[in-house]
Amino acid sequence: MPKILIRPGFILSGGDNWEVIRDNEILVEDGIIVYIGRRRDYVVGEIDRIIDGKNQLVMPGLINTHTHAAMALFRSFADDMPLMEWLEKKIWPAEERLKKEDIYWGTMLAISEMIRGGTTCFADMYFHMDDVARACLESGIRASLAQGLIGIDSEKGTAGLKQSKSLISSWHRAGEGRLTIMLGPHAPYTCPPRYLQDVMSIAADLKVPLHIHLAETRDEVRECLEKWGKRPVELMDSIGLFAHRVLAAHCVHLSEREIKILAEKQVFIAHNPGSNLKLGSGIAPLMNLLAAGAHVSLGTDGAASNNNLDMLEELRLAALLAKGFHEDPTVIPARKALQLATTNGAQALFLEAGLGTLTEEAPADLIMLDLLKPHLNPHHDLCAHLVYAASAADVELVMVKGKLLMEKRELLTIDEEMVLYEANRRAERLTR
Amino acid sequence: MPKILIRPGFILSGGDNWEVIRDNEILVEDGIIVYIGRRRDYVVGEIDRIIDGKNQLVMPGLINTHTHAAMALFRSFADDMPLMEWLEKKIWPAEERLKKEDIYWGTMLAISEMIRGGTTCFADMYFHMDDVARACLESGIRASLAQGLIGIDSEKGTAGLKQSKSLISSWHRAGEGRLTIMLGPHAPYTCPPRYLQDVMSIAADLKVPLHIHLAETRDEVRECLEKWGKRPVELMDSIGLFAHRVLAAHCVHLSEREIKILAEKQVFIAHNPGSNLKLGSGIAPLMNLLAAGAHVSLGTDGAASNNNLDMLEELRLAALLAKGFHEDPTVIPARKALQLATTNGAQALFLEAGLGTLTEEAPADLIMLDLLKPHLNPHHDLCAHLVYAASAADVELVMVKGKLLMEKRELLTIDEEMVLYEANRRAERLTR
Repeated sequence: MPKILIRPGFILSGGDNWEVIRDNEILVEDGIIVYIGRRRDYVVGEIDRIIDGKNQLVMPGLINTHTHAAMALFRSFADDMPLMEWLEKKIWPAEERLKKEDIYWGTMLAISEMIRGGTTCFADMYFHMDDVARACLESGIRASLAQGLIGIDSEKGTAGLKQSKSLISSWHRAGEGRLTIMLGPHAPYTCPPRYLQDVMSIAADLKVPLHIHLAETRDEVRECLEKWGKRPVELMDSIGLFAHRVLAAHCVHLSEREIKILAEKQVFIAHNPGSNLKLGSGIAPLMNLLAAGAHVSLGTDGAASNNNLDMLEELRLAALLAKGFHEDPTVIPARKALQLATTNGAQALFLEAGLGTLTEEAPADLIMLDLLKPHLNPHHDLCAHLVYAASAADVELVMVKGKLLMEKRELLTIDEEMVLYEANRRAERLTR
Repeated sequence: MPKILIRPGFILSGGDNWEVIRDNEILVEDGIIVYIGRRRDYVVGEIDRIIDGKNQLVMPGLINTHTHAAMALFRSFADDMPLMEWLEKKIWPAEERLKKEDIYWGTMLAISEMIRGGTTCFADMYFHMDDVARACLESGIRASLAQGLIGIDSEKGTAGLKQSKSLISSWHRAGEGRLTIMLGPHAPYTCPPRYLQDVMSIAADLKVPLHIHLAETRDEVRECLEKWGKRPVELMDSIGLFAHRVLAAHCVHLSEREIKILAEKQVFIAHNPGSNLKLGSGIAPLMNLLAAGAHVSLGTDGAASNNNLDMLEELRLAALLAKGFHEDPTVIPARKALQLATTNGAQALFLEAGLGTLTEEAPADLIMLDLLKPHLNPHHDLCAHLVYAASAADVELVMVKGKLLMEKRELLTIDEEMVLYEANRRAERLTR
């Protein structure tokens, strides 16, 4: 791979401090950041490509820890409806018609959008995951994939476990480590404890984490109490799920005791404020979770329930919502919101060390934003701009593992015109 | 003025139904929409300019009913701080240094951003309003301006009234009606009842509306109760303020009785969800207000407390927040959110008939968005896209009163490079 030198006006290396460093440079070689620091002199031919950006800011790529990418095909298909009506009358019948190729193109649509918004890695739970893996490998994005497992139907449940094992053997660590696989038991209400025992046994055998929906709605909590005499997080704890590495999406309706369990058992929580608001699920107790020491990252959820996959919007919403809900402007300050979307995301997806930050020896997953825009001026505090003012369209360049996926807002690994054409054609058929 | 014919793929004329009409056209002449309907044939020379947009959507311009434009100079200067510390240690000392020319350039920065995000009209409350008026006239945007009046200092109070009268005589209905002037008593806690009587008497004499901050924080309500024995809305009602046309910003902390008063007295409420969240003011009871029959429009507030002036973001936030807060996905459906940002805004600013919609004989205030983007596909429901997926950067073209202010994302009436340069230079001086 070529040696690429990036010289932006501003570098935010992320991690714990999000300090803004001016006029430094980043050297990338073989997918790795090999140097970050003061600008140096190089001899002719030593560098293959120099990317200059006087009015640009480079920061770690954003990490979306919960989505269903191919659901981008159902964006704006069903909105403003009660949850069960939305699922039963619109989403499930349309999903029944989804074929392998639809999943591929729907995922490509989602990946196109995610790259355009500065997302360099995402966690997906859906089905026909071989086709999702194919889209990820081709597009160059980093991802952690899970086949959604439904255990209430024993035939489907068994088939899902088989598919998951095949997914792991085919794709785990593919693309030189860009892809990883998780097991995806859908939720406590679709995966009874006996089935979850089977899932956990595979997780232990094959050493892969679990990705599950948890405590998303009041109805889920009520039904869980009725059926099992425990709230969802309590139930999962009682069957030993949290002895495994678990990424739990949503966690909106939690008791004090459950918040304590999530923190103590080091469960990784994907907070999805946009989806939780839009579906009327409620407002997750983000501050209580963080105060208890729980580990929180951010997800967009699928585009049928958000309706975009914009991580800058999601991190803004997380910060604003916590401030407004608690009537305290000091909670989730800008740098904390940025951590949720980067380092915390990398940990939640059990990615290799250094990811989510710009540091020497870390994989070069980075994004560059253009600051020469009215809404990003003046420059009192660039971190505050990223959280409270920036938008997906400010992202100019995206690099994953040293490879450029977007430059000057042009996608380099995806035929976008073809993706839009195929996505529209298929969406029409699926929802007719 | 030239005859401009616009032929987009989709027209949303707004109003009550927000129907999506395909392959129609809009003819604009002398600042007015003279025809909207099926495409017709024209003879050579009959039309001066044809704007085609196969993958574009045309809709009414967005109306921002509460901001402090020049505060764009303080964007990202002070965030994540308690309200009084934010005001006393950061904002007020910096505002003390503001000179006329700073206000002009700060307003130009804000107008640049607003045009880029599809805002065609805004309501401003600040000071040195002659310079704000100048920026509005030069840039071509529509605005309703109010000098912020502080009545607790009797000298400043008297001077403010004099400036307001001068503002009205100089600028009311200037720019062929593009500018209108309101009186801007800042808030009940800065304008005691006796002073408000003077303001009301001018409002009655000169037939101009009032723009006031009302019931923004819990502290305001507590202080008002301590000092006057009434809550803010009750106090304003008791002194007869609502016998005048009033635009009241925020209205976050309201009793049931106050909600009833606001509805019955037909007060126009500017809901600012982004600012209310970010400053930790709280979550306004939007649904209760609407259920009571109150009139609600949307505002961004100033960029020191938002931190952008993005009306698409604001209308999305209004819809999402109401759904999440009430745990009901059916409240504020997409078309309702679009009304808040268009027709309701036009009424709140007492603009001429037809504004906020695209209808024949209405002034041509319209925007065109590019739909050829992953996050705006597929096209199941374009109204849902506008509310739940679109972003400011999707706006390609902005027209106010028949004049093009932006085309292909290039500002046509503003020297943007100069604005960014001046804004940064001045912001640095003001906050040093």
